[in-house]
Amino acid sequence: MSTKPPAVATDAQASAAIHRPATGAGNWLGVEALHYKQEGSAPFRDVSRRVLFGDAQFSSQLRYFEVQAGGYTTLERHRHAHAVLILRGGGKALVGDAILTLAEHDLVSVPPLTWHQFRAPHDGPLGFLCMVNVKRDRPQLPTAAELETLRSNPRLAAFLRD
Amino acid sequence: MSTKPPAVATDAQASAAIHRPATGAGNWLGVEALHYKQEGSAPFRDVSRRVLFGDAQFSSQLRYFEVQAGGYTTLERHRHAHAVLILRGGGKALVGDAILTLAEHDLVSVPPLTWHQFRAPHDGPLGFLCMVNVKRDRPQLPTAAELETLRSNPRLAAFLRD
Repeated sequence: MSTKPPAVATDAQASAAIHRPATGAGNWLGVEALHYKQEGSAPFRDVSRRVLFGDAQFSSQLRYFEVQAGGYTTLERHRHAHAVLILRGGGKALVGDAILTLAEHDLVSVPPLTWHQFRAPHDGPLGFLCMVNVKRDRPQLPTAAELETLRSNPRLAAFLRD
Repeated sequence: MSTKPPAVATDAQASAAIHRPATGAGNWLGVEALHYKQEGSAPFRDVSRRVLFGDAQFSSQLRYFEVQAGGYTTLERHRHAHAVLILRGGGKALVGDAILTLAEHDLVSVPPLTWHQFRAPHDGPLGFLCMVNVKRDRPQLPTAAELETLRSNPRLAAFLRD
């Protein structure tokens, strides 16, 4: 390391790069693992959340979610869309009435007001990136009647049964 | 394939999922490889560009750039910020006056008005995701004087020399 004072910043060197190296599967230096949701607010199992890019200069956020083996995200919908890229592992997703089998680097668009849930397999994690607009509505949970409608489709019932 | 007519869409099943499976390194079903820039508009070598998520419901775009062995992106800057995640391979990046050594899943923030360039190593590709705001300014190229200033730093001169 040099002990010389830093050169005077020029316009061309105005801002410092932020480099957050990957320090292992689903971990980055200086990126905190957050609670996925408030405990008890909605059903989910074994999910962590990280905001990879979320500062004010971006009109969207890029988050990383990791679902551990056997875990699942909340079944929910909202007006905002999700842009998802599978970063690690595989699993399945329910999106509307489709059940998708996911592999590394697959892309998934979750359209507005579409029920969705991501599930890790029983033998490994599912890690995915999710881009959302900063300005977005809160998720809605299914009512008992809506759940019943979803479960009237045997494929969806099997997916939701875990 | 079933020949039955599709079930009537309910509110809960309003929209079809879009699932674009990864079909190999840096390729996705239904995602077109685009020209990185107009030929001759700015110096670069062996770069392809894909818009992974770019429809109007998102206030940002998620793009994938792939730089082939020995290639590099344009040295440029702009007021908008870049949020980068290395998806494939490694390489180096110049961001401001920092030279970063990149590995898979590393995160890089490129701040506003900061000179930057990504370079693949000589023995393999560098593939990275880049999130940008939809509303953004055009890149600026360095003037001869700005290039001279950058090259007055021996580390940067060595990086830019290829």
